[in-house]
Amino acid sequence: MKRELALLLVHYPVVDRQGDVVTTAITNLDLHDIARSAYTYGASRFYVVHPIEAQRRLAERVRAHWVEGSGARRIPDRKPPMTQLRVVVSVEQALAELEPPVELWATSASPSSTTLGYGAARNLLNQGEGTVALLFGTGWGLAPELFARAHRVLEPIASQRADGYNHLSVRAAAAITLDRLSAGESR
Amino acid sequence: MKRELALLLVHYPVVDRQGDVVTTAITNLDLHDIARSAYTYGASRFYVVHPIEAQRRLAERVRAHWVEGSGARRIPDRKPPMTQLRVVVSVEQALAELEPPVELWATSASPSSTTLGYGAARNLLNQGEGTVALLFGTGWGLAPELFARAHRVLEPIASQRADGYNHLSVRAAAAITLDRLSAGESR
Repeated sequence: MKRELALLLVHYPVVDRQGDVVTTAITNLDLHDIARSAYTYGASRFYVVHPIEAQRRLAERVRAHWVEGSGARRIPDRKPPMTQLRVVVSVEQALAELEPPVELWATSASPSSTTLGYGAARNLLNQGEGTVALLFGTGWGLAPELFARAHRVLEPIASQRADGYNHLSVRAAAAITLDRLSAGESR
Repeated sequence: MKRELALLLVHYPVVDRQGDVVTTAITNLDLHDIARSAYTYGASRFYVVHPIEAQRRLAERVRAHWVEGSGARRIPDRKPPMTQLRVVVSVEQALAELEPPVELWATSASPSSTTLGYGAARNLLNQGEGTVALLFGTGWGLAPELFARAHRVLEPIASQRADGYNHLSVRAAAAITLDRLSAGESR
């Protein structure tokens, strides 16, 4: 990838099952799981976005455990990806830290008419300058205001079932998206 | 896929960081995370393999929570994938339950000379009869005895980094592998 790629794991604004805008709680395991996927695929940063201070402190404690605490000694392989993790109060704060120009790409499990396919996305990552900020929503996904702000919406990961069942975890969706964006020749 | 695909999450025999054969503890989140990925990609079964009875009871309790407990009422989307989850004492027990002939495919993060590429794997899944049992190891991966028994070893998911860093979680590796085996046309 020629451009920098930053992942954002958004806990607000996201929607719940009913479509109401909510703040979700941090799932500890998301932090090192998505950090490891992001790092393995060459993303330069992983932002955990949470508006509540107590939740940001929790994320900072998890980070410290793997970067300088007993976790760093027990499983040193987790240190490099967790070093890249940053805890921020808002999507705005993350975007302000990134190398401009910053292009915001949203992800969704629901098809829309304006999605960006993975081949086109790979081309965009390999040309131009600045950073692509790739947003993943917890809960039932990113809130409408983030789609309204997004420059692009990535094509959803479609179900392979006849009944269309499609409820991947955000951890699985992030891993698959990174893999599709990198397009190993071995496919 | 013409053949049935079953996923096995193996907690024994697997290796630790030093390469010693060990039994790992169950990570609760693995169960519904991998179950959801398996179901979304059309795998017919997901086996959790653990030799210790107390750990199998834990997995059964997690399953019951999502299939008939309060989890089934709160997040009904998790019920279908968790209904497919089976808890077994050994790889043998899982293989004995599957529609024969059963072909055993191992997965690994380390390259070997006899790996099966994803294009060839997709062809094999779309022809022939019976079941492909796809094994994922917890800890630092499947034990040598399982590679010795495997009919095929899937090509590793390569790092996209110059330094070769490659430490995906088993949840991320399972999701990416399922995606590559299904080969959405949208790639």
